[in-house]
Amino acid sequence: MAQKKAGHDVVVVVSAMGDTTDELLDLAEQVSPMPPARELDMLVTAGERMSMALVAMAIENLGYEARSFTGSQAGVITTSLHGNAKIIDVTPGRIQEAVGEGAICIVAGFQGVSQDTKDITSLGRGGSDTTAVALAGALSADACEIYSDVDGVFTADPRVVPTAQRIPQISYEEMLEMAASGTKILHLRCVEYARQYNIPLHVRSSFSQKPGTWIVSEVEESEGMEQPIISGVSHDRSEAKITVVGVPDKVGEAATIFKALADAEINIDMIVQNVSAVSTSRTDISFTVPKDFGKEAVAALKKVQEKVGYDSLRYDDKIGKVSLIGAGMRSYPGVTARFFDSIASSGTNVEMISTSEIRISVIVEEDQVDAAVQAAHREFQLDADQVEAVVYGGTGR
Amino acid sequence: MAQKKAGHDVVVVVSAMGDTTDELLDLAEQVSPMPPARELDMLVTAGERMSMALVAMAIENLGYEARSFTGSQAGVITTSLHGNAKIIDVTPGRIQEAVGEGAICIVAGFQGVSQDTKDITSLGRGGSDTTAVALAGALSADACEIYSDVDGVFTADPRVVPTAQRIPQISYEEMLEMAASGTKILHLRCVEYARQYNIPLHVRSSFSQKPGTWIVSEVEESEGMEQPIISGVSHDRSEAKITVVGVPDKVGEAATIFKALADAEINIDMIVQNVSAVSTSRTDISFTVPKDFGKEAVAALKKVQEKVGYDSLRYDDKIGKVSLIGAGMRSYPGVTARFFDSIASSGTNVEMISTSEIRISVIVEEDQVDAAVQAAHREFQLDADQVEAVVYGGTGR
Repeated sequence: MAQKKAGHDVVVVVSAMGDTTDELLDLAEQVSPMPPARELDMLVTAGERMSMALVAMAIENLGYEARSFTGSQAGVITTSLHGNAKIIDVTPGRIQEAVGEGAICIVAGFQGVSQDTKDITSLGRGGSDTTAVALAGALSADACEIYSDVDGVFTADPRVVPTAQRIPQISYEEMLEMAASGTKILHLRCVEYARQYNIPLHVRSSFSQKPGTWIVSEVEESEGMEQPIISGVSHDRSEAKITVVGVPDKVGEAATIFKALADAEINIDMIVQNVSAVSTSRTDISFTVPKDFGKEAVAALKKVQEKVGYDSLRYDDKIGKVSLIGAGMRSYPGVTARFFDSIASSGTNVEMISTSEIRISVIVEEDQVDAAVQAAHREFQLDADQVEAVVYGGTGR
Repeated sequence: MAQKKAGHDVVVVVSAMGDTTDELLDLAEQVSPMPPARELDMLVTAGERMSMALVAMAIENLGYEARSFTGSQAGVITTSLHGNAKIIDVTPGRIQEAVGEGAICIVAGFQGVSQDTKDITSLGRGGSDTTAVALAGALSADACEIYSDVDGVFTADPRVVPTAQRIPQISYEEMLEMAASGTKILHLRCVEYARQYNIPLHVRSSFSQKPGTWIVSEVEESEGMEQPIISGVSHDRSEAKITVVGVPDKVGEAATIFKALADAEINIDMIVQNVSAVSTSRTDISFTVPKDFGKEAVAALKKVQEKVGYDSLRYDDKIGKVSLIGAGMRSYPGVTARFFDSIASSGTNVEMISTSEIRISVIVEEDQVDAAVQAAHREFQLDADQVEAVVYGGTGR
């Protein structure tokens, strides 16, 4: 309302209310143990339909004109993978028309219509935020505001680092690295879309009018101050480490291993290959996978044991990943050294390392994650003078 | 399932489950005292969306292929009068395709998409049955089965006449007259559609496999038996009688009265104009309107009192209508006399009369309706030897 009053055209993307989606899934379970994905999408998308109509009514009741649109009506065209469809295109003709007539448009998030079959699809995790960004892109919006239950993106998870600070501005690249390394506030796909269409994102709280975090292409230097080298420290406890022990050091063995995992549709995150011992001509390969796919990964690797000729598998799900993210590390040498020093000084042992141009990640033991995050956060002077964050639970849809 | 097993292609039209619609309307009331009709339709149509997806899942779980479609996807094109839209056309291309592929189609009843604005509409009372018949027409179906909570159409309301019998076959015309005169089983619009497209309707119980009532263009004569003269006796307690007293007997006065009611969108049912008294040149005009519109009708008439110059208004909502319906009365003279005799013998006073080619209706005092229905039912030998009907409550949607 504040935005509409300020003279902006407003398009609102809504999710389902509270437990609606879970209640609908319960109903589905009652009628069928394995409900077809197409019908499951038809069912769960009723959730957004209800909330968007109610939101439109509430807005009209405040004296504004509001019109609700399903994903299909809003022109959200997707692939036909029910339950996890991807947005292919957005053709928001009806939204443009309604906005042109002065209406506030309320669009159902998380849903679209498949290009091939014209069936109703749902988008999977982060789908509502992705809908908002894709629509903002198609409408060439000035900005896309993501309302969530947190005040913005913080330099670390405030539950681990109580003195973590809200980041006023961050670049798409840094946000992508943070999302990929455990910061749950925005889904990766949503940030990717925003970067692709160059739509500034504003992540802010539903519960206050305070500014949140702006995610933009170029972070402006604030008055008289350089940008900090490091934007934040993120962590992730959702991965497991698998070590393939005693892989014969021949061409193509690693490829066979990773092809087996790819065929099972398992995403691999970090990979480390040890230097092979000269005496044995054998090496160990370690990598991380999402814990949820741990069993499948081990099963897929067992199938190729004979072919590859490795000795054994080691599986460890008591690990965590700690990542340091900052565009500034490009131009400041020594960041890596300071990061490792701080982690070592917290008494934490580093098991694996991976780096990108603006990120360093390490795998540590699970119960050392907090200490490592706190040490790195302190080392790069990210601590605020006082605690400002309030953390709410999130639904992730 | 039985129909699919018997080799028929099956398209199922579903309503919302139980109290879903009322629950959704409650939600709307919580956010807005006067919710916009467009958004109300968006909201309530979520009800059928849920039931159709669940029905499709349940059918798939039984090993059949099922696909659900919204009214819009099924090609139900309507006017844009939200909450009470009329079906203009049905373009069931997607249904035909899915049926051709062997799927059982589950279509949301009670909803469509407006031709002009492409908005989601709901059809108003009887909308699900009307959807089924319109779709059956567009698909040139062999028949349309209407599953309800009663076993079929009876010769009278079994709550009033316990010995009422199920009618095995009845013509569209007779069913239209019955629906118009108080038999609540099928909505008038639904029967009109069936007649227009010549789709045989089979009204039967959801709770049993027993045959119900077939509604067809030509009733077949059963073996060795002629069709009964009279199909049934219906009654209606939903009307009120208004008498405009002392209308000057001039050309155009009646027209002014009825135009005032038409402008207020009030439907008039029976009309009686008394012969004017020679001494005064004034007459009384009586007619019936739905009780729900009684107040509006009186208000509309008060506005034209000066213009028309009538003396006063009399309003009586303690009346009931009893109707005798039968195509046979065309060829059997004396039916009217027997009807009036039977009603008189029950001690009931007739206040107004109206007739069509296959119907006679009388207005009586409300508390004499049951006696009049029973007397007429007995007179035309419609009583069964034993009671067979079980009456359930209905929702009317």
